[in-house]
Amino acid sequence: MHFTSEISSDGITQRGFSLDGVPGVLWQLDDRPLDGRPLVLLGHGGGGDKLGVAERARRCVGRYGFAALALDAPGHGERPRTAQDERFVTEVGELLAARRPISAWVARHTAALAERAVPEWVAALDALDGTLGAAGERLGPVGFWGLSLGSVVGIPLTAAEPRIAAAVFGLTGHAAQAEAAQRVGVPLEFVLQWDDELVPREGALALYGSFGSREKSLHANPGGHLEVPDFEVAASERFLVRHLGEGRDDRADRA
Amino acid sequence: MHFTSEISSDGITQRGFSLDGVPGVLWQLDDRPLDGRPLVLLGHGGGGDKLGVAERARRCVGRYGFAALALDAPGHGERPRTAQDERFVTEVGELLAARRPISAWVARHTAALAERAVPEWVAALDALDGTLGAAGERLGPVGFWGLSLGSVVGIPLTAAEPRIAAAVFGLTGHAAQAEAAQRVGVPLEFVLQWDDELVPREGALALYGSFGSREKSLHANPGGHLEVPDFEVAASERFLVRHLGEGRDDRADRA
Repeated sequence: MHFTSEISSDGITQRGFSLDGVPGVLWQLDDRPLDGRPLVLLGHGGGGDKLGVAERARRCVGRYGFAALALDAPGHGERPRTAQDERFVTEVGELLAARRPISAWVARHTAALAERAVPEWVAALDALDGTLGAAGERLGPVGFWGLSLGSVVGIPLTAAEPRIAAAVFGLTGHAAQAEAAQRVGVPLEFVLQWDDELVPREGALALYGSFGSREKSLHANPGGHLEVPDFEVAASERFLVRHLGEGRDDRADRA
Repeated sequence: MHFTSEISSDGITQRGFSLDGVPGVLWQLDDRPLDGRPLVLLGHGGGGDKLGVAERARRCVGRYGFAALALDAPGHGERPRTAQDERFVTEVGELLAARRPISAWVARHTAALAERAVPEWVAALDALDGTLGAAGERLGPVGFWGLSLGSVVGIPLTAAEPRIAAAVFGLTGHAAQAEAAQRVGVPLEFVLQWDDELVPREGALALYGSFGSREKSLHANPGGHLEVPDFEVAASERFLVRHLGEGRDDRADRA
């Protein structure tokens, strides 16, 4: 893993990297080893990018001692948009303006995006694992946090990636996601907005029902797609702490 | 409020009382004033009684400094069963044994029970309020916690009782409850079991949708009526703490 930038503020180091053309960011506590520390993978939403989750990343690092990792999804952030990406953005805008349902259309496009994104996340985990191993350190417990597009990518990623031990999903739900959801077996929290203008309620409830996990909690609240309450985000962070543990500084403590 | 018994263990005093023939229990920290302290009203489930919620009461008192109050519902605990109560218990058992749906039948009987129970809870709050006032103290913020039958009583109680500032409901859901639910405006958490054998999922989801509250969170988990996960119960207690505050001992602190 080759880092291309590094800035630090309030005790948190943010390092940029690029892996086979996929730009990413790693956040961690200044001058503390990553060795064994819980790592949360942060999937951004549609139209967002790796730095759109910076506030959440900094909170996970600052409050709980986690490390946090984000990637630009295909066609997002610093990555080039294909002709198909451009067409999608234009057509979604047109459908929304015409107040026509976009769920099936979004599901089709984002499923294709997820097929490209999943191996990129696996490669990033492999690279971090290798970097740590070369330094005599090891990867700690890994969690995934991502809503909306973050879940469209995160659900098949979590189904495929045995290193992910717990996940927060939500703001999505289409029949096409059911097969991957059935293969997810780790504890999860699923966030649903009762009045989501982009995701039909029945589709989200059905997706929650599809997950193969024995521990899975549905948390629903009133409001639209972008109105997840702060207390719900805080609860999802505590959920990750409950399953991954807090990042304690054993080395520092022993020093 | 006339207390008829008092026992103390692990720093918590449990006092029994009877109010117009309704037996109840009050839990509080030993030797600490009730003045201004958050109070949680604990509604027990069908077939249970006021001491069936003792463990939850002791946790709310011990961990959060709350006071806690429970009453026997009509036909439960130490209270006599009417011929109608006896018939209900027999017939519910027969319907369950025959694997026939009981939701509508239970809704009819428990709605009648709730009509008797709501004024009893109001009277208990009045009595406690009066007792505190006579001692120069005041009632603190009040919350309600009750699932299943506890919610059948608690929903119309919370709709009618302006002293209740936050509520935890769940494990119930029948169209007959929608009208009272619409009149509930306080923050609430609604607990749903995805595979509840006694409450149809659609009915519970519809009831959640009916609440008039701006802040209302649905928390669903896999499993049957009696399998609410411990972490969900813990979350509902933190919800009450978030809205009622913790019981701090200002007097003790000042002393």
